[in-house]
Amino acid sequence: MKIIIDIGGCDYPDKMILGVCNAAKAHPDYQMVLVGDKEFIEQHLDKTVNNVIIEHAPDIITNEDSPTRAIRQKPNSSLVRAISVLNESDDAIGFISGGSTGAVLTASTLLIGRIKGVHRAVLASLMPCAVDGKLVCIADCGANVDCNPEFLPQFALMAHYYIKAVFGIENPTVGLLSNGAEDKKGDERTKAAFPLIKALPINFVGNMEARYAMSGDYDIIVCDGFAGNVLVKSVEGTAKTVMKLVKQAMTSSFKAKMGALLLKKSITALKDKMDYHAYGGAAFLGLNKPVIKTHGSSNEVSTAASVNNLIRMHEHNTVEEIRIGISAIEAAAEAPSEGEKQ
Amino acid sequence: MKIIIDIGGCDYPDKMILGVCNAAKAHPDYQMVLVGDKEFIEQHLDKTVNNVIIEHAPDIITNEDSPTRAIRQKPNSSLVRAISVLNESDDAIGFISGGSTGAVLTASTLLIGRIKGVHRAVLASLMPCAVDGKLVCIADCGANVDCNPEFLPQFALMAHYYIKAVFGIENPTVGLLSNGAEDKKGDERTKAAFPLIKALPINFVGNMEARYAMSGDYDIIVCDGFAGNVLVKSVEGTAKTVMKLVKQAMTSSFKAKMGALLLKKSITALKDKMDYHAYGGAAFLGLNKPVIKTHGSSNEVSTAASVNNLIRMHEHNTVEEIRIGISAIEAAAEAPSEGEKQ
Repeated sequence: MKIIIDIGGCDYPDKMILGVCNAAKAHPDYQMVLVGDKEFIEQHLDKTVNNVIIEHAPDIITNEDSPTRAIRQKPNSSLVRAISVLNESDDAIGFISGGSTGAVLTASTLLIGRIKGVHRAVLASLMPCAVDGKLVCIADCGANVDCNPEFLPQFALMAHYYIKAVFGIENPTVGLLSNGAEDKKGDERTKAAFPLIKALPINFVGNMEARYAMSGDYDIIVCDGFAGNVLVKSVEGTAKTVMKLVKQAMTSSFKAKMGALLLKKSITALKDKMDYHAYGGAAFLGLNKPVIKTHGSSNEVSTAASVNNLIRMHEHNTVEEIRIGISAIEAAAEAPSEGEKQ
Repeated sequence: MKIIIDIGGCDYPDKMILGVCNAAKAHPDYQMVLVGDKEFIEQHLDKTVNNVIIEHAPDIITNEDSPTRAIRQKPNSSLVRAISVLNESDDAIGFISGGSTGAVLTASTLLIGRIKGVHRAVLASLMPCAVDGKLVCIADCGANVDCNPEFLPQFALMAHYYIKAVFGIENPTVGLLSNGAEDKKGDERTKAAFPLIKALPINFVGNMEARYAMSGDYDIIVCDGFAGNVLVKSVEGTAKTVMKLVKQAMTSSFKAKMGALLLKKSITALKDKMDYHAYGGAAFLGLNKPVIKTHGSSNEVSTAASVNNLIRMHEHNTVEEIRIGISAIEAAAEAPSEGEKQ
């Protein structure tokens, strides 16, 4: 079984290579295909690992490129090559990329293709919670900034299968991001989406407020990509700002500095807990193969975590589960109701 | 000059009364009109203050009441009485309420009325930044969850005059909340709003990401009320969660506890910095009189801060500035352009 990893366009390709080599050691049954500049990869490859192969692709699609144009004009880019290898190999289980988000999403959608019935593929990212070791999945976190209400139940269902696979939670709790917890709260979009999500055979617990995103009460938060992007980025930005202010407080006086020395170990442990590298990239769900978009600044830890998540999705047949789930809810939506039949 | 303060429906009416008495001492030229249960107010009133009077209103509109129905059916509620006093007194400069948000916004809109040309009144809240003493204004923070693009430039303009008044900043920086900083980023709504905001005679610095909301780079962040609510609540929730985790880290071992003892003063100072009580409630802008909705859990500090902000809005003629500004941009929007004239 092959896992395809595109290292073009990320900030630290050497760290991604290291992460892939570590993952290769941990998963000897899989073959890792590193796609990028051959010479560079060879320089940084762990030569003791024998289940990593290289696919040479010298070009890179950058953030400045127009995604759709670049996909046509740069067939030798690591991104396009990676997806070609994925599509051409019967034993390739999925694809990980650290490249430009816009290009990865566009190329994946165009070249891998959406599962029949899926309105939009959803970008599902993971965030740490206040509860030790627990993560929360935000779907969509920014791929679809303009969403119709009927996209949201599909996001919920796809994230349900994803979280079931990567965390082994049989029936993850799903909250709908809104401006209040009451059933009637929300904008026109979420109000229309609410009954559609409620009708799904998933553990929908109703509307939720952004202030409880990290509470640990939710495994999945469903939202449009604009609000999801605001949520994910404000949590990231606020956590960073508060930690910076704590650091400032710790150096504000001699006494404070002495206190900080004693606290160093505990605060480092806290920082590790909030480090996004530990839990891998965002899954792009609803395509015909598993796709994970890692953070541009991914290191060896997050790359290895992404490989793990991809393997879990493969082992749990997540794509197939999504295919069956989507086809069932779409069939139910199209079927005449009892009332209409008469 | 009178300032009307509705203390019905808030969590700590005694603290609000104390805040009003403190504000009365600081502003002897103004008369404070406390609206609520007379007996309760008399019990908690600072008898040394002689510029506070009581308007008896025994009823309370709660979160459970339907706002529009309650406004009709509870004429003796503190909220409806407060607005009546405001409307009946020529020398009343504005109104502060700690009551149910939905009821305050609905009653203010219906009974005080919008300035001509204003599509929607905007709820503009203040949040602390990473930069010492600096605040950022989020407009809209939740009053208007369904916004048309043309609402957003009005929000920007109204917040511009508000921040000019309360912070004395001549030309506050305005960012448009989006999913990226580039001009072309955004959903359909923000993409359509962008050129409209850019055309205003304000200091518009373009799109901004939620992660930089607390950076201090922005005086005003303009957004629809759904995204604004997500932003404000996720910042609040994350700051609280991270501080809780820091506290946990400080009690995780004997050494950590010793360190925490030495840091107590600095961390308390940091907590004070992030305390929303210090900077007053959210202004509801675009109505014919200044309105401030304080947090339900307002204490004496936030109540006094709200009174200060209301006085600044009065002294700067903020309502009149908004009236002129809105009428100018609406006239410009209606006038045929040079091209159309020919």
